[in-house]
Amino acid sequence: MISKNQVKFLKSLHQSKYRRKEQLFLAEGVKIVDEFIKSNYSIKTIYAIEEWIDNNADVFDNINEVSLKELHSISLLKTPNQVLAVVEFPEDKNIVFDEGDLILALDTIQDPGNLGTIIRIADWFGIKKIICSNETADALNPKVVQATMGALTRVNIEYTDLPSWITKLPDTTPVYGTLLDGDNMYETDLSDDGVIVVGNEGNGITPEVQKVLTHRIKIPAYGNSMMESLNVAIATSLVCAEFRR
Amino acid sequence: MISKNQVKFLKSLHQSKYRRKEQLFLAEGVKIVDEFIKSNYSIKTIYAIEEWIDNNADVFDNINEVSLKELHSISLLKTPNQVLAVVEFPEDKNIVFDEGDLILALDTIQDPGNLGTIIRIADWFGIKKIICSNETADALNPKVVQATMGALTRVNIEYTDLPSWITKLPDTTPVYGTLLDGDNMYETDLSDDGVIVVGNEGNGITPEVQKVLTHRIKIPAYGNSMMESLNVAIATSLVCAEFRR
Repeated sequence: MISKNQVKFLKSLHQSKYRRKEQLFLAEGVKIVDEFIKSNYSIKTIYAIEEWIDNNADVFDNINEVSLKELHSISLLKTPNQVLAVVEFPEDKNIVFDEGDLILALDTIQDPGNLGTIIRIADWFGIKKIICSNETADALNPKVVQATMGALTRVNIEYTDLPSWITKLPDTTPVYGTLLDGDNMYETDLSDDGVIVVGNEGNGITPEVQKVLTHRIKIPAYGNSMMESLNVAIATSLVCAEFRR
Repeated sequence: MISKNQVKFLKSLHQSKYRRKEQLFLAEGVKIVDEFIKSNYSIKTIYAIEEWIDNNADVFDNINEVSLKELHSISLLKTPNQVLAVVEFPEDKNIVFDEGDLILALDTIQDPGNLGTIIRIADWFGIKKIICSNETADALNPKVVQATMGALTRVNIEYTDLPSWITKLPDTTPVYGTLLDGDNMYETDLSDDGVIVVGNEGNGITPEVQKVLTHRIKIPAYGNSMMESLNVAIATSLVCAEFRR
């Protein structure tokens, strides 16, 4: 059973301001909730249908059984998948650059789907630290949480004023930016550690961040492609692959 | 002006069976329609608002001026963008492998967004030939056309029975499949030409196609990533990059 007030409360967590106020966010679906249960995140409540509870009775104390119809009323998914968890915000991260780190810096990534895919890519490439400009989409937006497919539980994310964060890095830290007029990354000697800055879907890296880059690189198109640019998540995967290669 | 019958006809082209019957498909938006006008495709009709017509009066004879409200009634986009074109099917392709070709083979890619992104990636990497299993999503689906961002005008696509198409290739043609248990592609000597098979989002490459592969490769995750797999479009971009590198 779920009360009207609970439905109202859960729906409020679809919005960033209420997530921040309550310090709670939502994760949905069997696979993703399972990853959060196994992770360091603290779960506040779980809403699940009988089938899920039968398979997961021991994993968590505070489980509310709901009907599929009730799950529909609180889910953001077109086809809700058995379970929805209310998860507590992670502790504030204070991401610093340590020698050997490869850090991804997101300069105003706006689309939640792109952000989720980028977090998933970071996880694939063993990148544990992502620093986001304050203008980047909220990583705890339910759409982002779904798109990360659980990768969120393994990657640390901090929001900050990006230009000043970069300025405070040790002088020797390489800061790479991906730009349309940079040097061909396949012909550039890339370092093992450093910061990789990825820019906005339409406008690329902001002028303030461009000023504090130490290296400007580009992903070359093959032959005479007429394409102006790649999707930002695709571009991020190609750059991460080249650094890790 | 647009009649009720025209609206009905245009909406029917959202469905694959009517597209095949009429041999027509839809392309929307200023940038994408512009790419089709400049391409080898034949355009049958254009529906556009006054603003677009003012800027493009000379480009095409058969332009119907419509109101923004009328454009809304025929568009699949949430925010229709000035113009919608009815485009004739391309001539039947008969894709063959020529020495030096890198061909992408799609084995049951189901999501139109993934298919569109993959076509865009092919264009970026100068791959001009894509062969699709008959079970792959329709590349002339409006969602795919939009996601390709015009790349569709520069890449040839044929649908066929994929296992038998591969069987008919010259014996010496390398056929690479991306599989979770393949050889690390960064440690494999990749050929300059050949066929790269990409499998279904959930189930990978079908057993019939696996049988006719000559090489099995995988994209290694870095370190101890818990991720089971990458999104298929991301994986395709990483493989194409490695072949073109």
